[in-house]
Amino acid sequence: MLKLFYSPNSCALASHIALQEAGADYETVRLDFRANEQRKPEYLAINPKGRVPALATDRGILTETPAILAYIAQSFPKARLAPLDDAFAFARLQAFNSYLCSTVHVAHAHRLRGYRWVDADDAAAIAAMQKKVPQSVGECFDLIEREMLAGPWVMGSAYAICDPYLFTLAQWLDGDGVDIARFPKVADHRQRMAERPAVRAAIAAELG
Amino acid sequence: MLKLFYSPNSCALASHIALQEAGADYETVRLDFRANEQRKPEYLAINPKGRVPALATDRGILTETPAILAYIAQSFPKARLAPLDDAFAFARLQAFNSYLCSTVHVAHAHRLRGYRWVDADDAAAIAAMQKKVPQSVGECFDLIEREMLAGPWVMGSAYAICDPYLFTLAQWLDGDGVDIARFPKVADHRQRMAERPAVRAAIAAELG
Repeated sequence: MLKLFYSPNSCALASHIALQEAGADYETVRLDFRANEQRKPEYLAINPKGRVPALATDRGILTETPAILAYIAQSFPKARLAPLDDAFAFARLQAFNSYLCSTVHVAHAHRLRGYRWVDADDAAAIAAMQKKVPQSVGECFDLIEREMLAGPWVMGSAYAICDPYLFTLAQWLDGDGVDIARFPKVADHRQRMAERPAVRAAIAAELG
Repeated sequence: MLKLFYSPNSCALASHIALQEAGADYETVRLDFRANEQRKPEYLAINPKGRVPALATDRGILTETPAILAYIAQSFPKARLAPLDDAFAFARLQAFNSYLCSTVHVAHAHRLRGYRWVDADDAAAIAAMQKKVPQSVGECFDLIEREMLAGPWVMGSAYAICDPYLFTLAQWLDGDGVDIARFPKVADHRQRMAERPAVRAAIAAELG
């Protein structure tokens, strides 16, 4: 059975929702980041990066949200979570997810994870990073609103694996000091996502 | 015909090499970053992100290295650049490429693109980021060396689209102040990559 390692309010929610949407048989393992469980030897043996998500399969461990999302779409084709027979459409979807992981999530991470890129005790540099987050994250969502979110779903009429990923990162806007009302399409997307049974089930499980 | 927009010494080299390996019919368009050509309206109409690579196809534009690499592998299956019929193996490959784009490239970018995450005129914060790059990039390649590079190619015996991507980022180690000799498998990989006709052709074209 598939086993998803996650922590609440992390990007692992995207994979969690996708497993629900796919109708997959899976279980979850919660890591407590406040107790630094992701850095304990037991978990580093599963994912040496010390991050979530990780998805244990009968063939081994998978990491990285875009890879896990594509794996779920390919493993559960009946759920129609990606255009699997159209290399161009699949690449457009993957480009969206790659932008989320390499640019949007990274911009966000400078608020609470600045120690990755400057010395942890350099309080001025950490603060300089935090100060820029509303601008850098805001610019990312401005681009998503203007250029990338076709509507009603990210890729257009077909719901796909980029929708739970966008929803997950849009959940962080308030904390990042970005008013989602600036982005009507993103706000509408987030609201419609929040009403989906799979999304409600994944969130309830993570809060439970 | 496919058209790759690139700038020399950028991550676009990975896609350039993959097009060569695939035997694709393509042309290239060079952008001069010193002249800020990636920010000019003509290019922003192609890629609103103002970044490279971008791949123009007869169906539209693709961006983001992991997405372009998977598109090339799927569009030229005879070149066998990815395990297209094995969702788990494909996901392992994609996880590697996702780590390169979201963690390795990002760590590197803090040396010359720190203004993305702090105010451009905050010289102390910019310098604090640059100071950490040898450590953060070094830790990434330490993980690649220990856990991810199966050898002789990234995924093992089969050359794949993650090999040109790793090669491209390993080209930056010297500039990032990281001695590649710390990573014997990465160093061996870089040397064998540099001898491949497709790699030599792509580099010669970019320097020409």
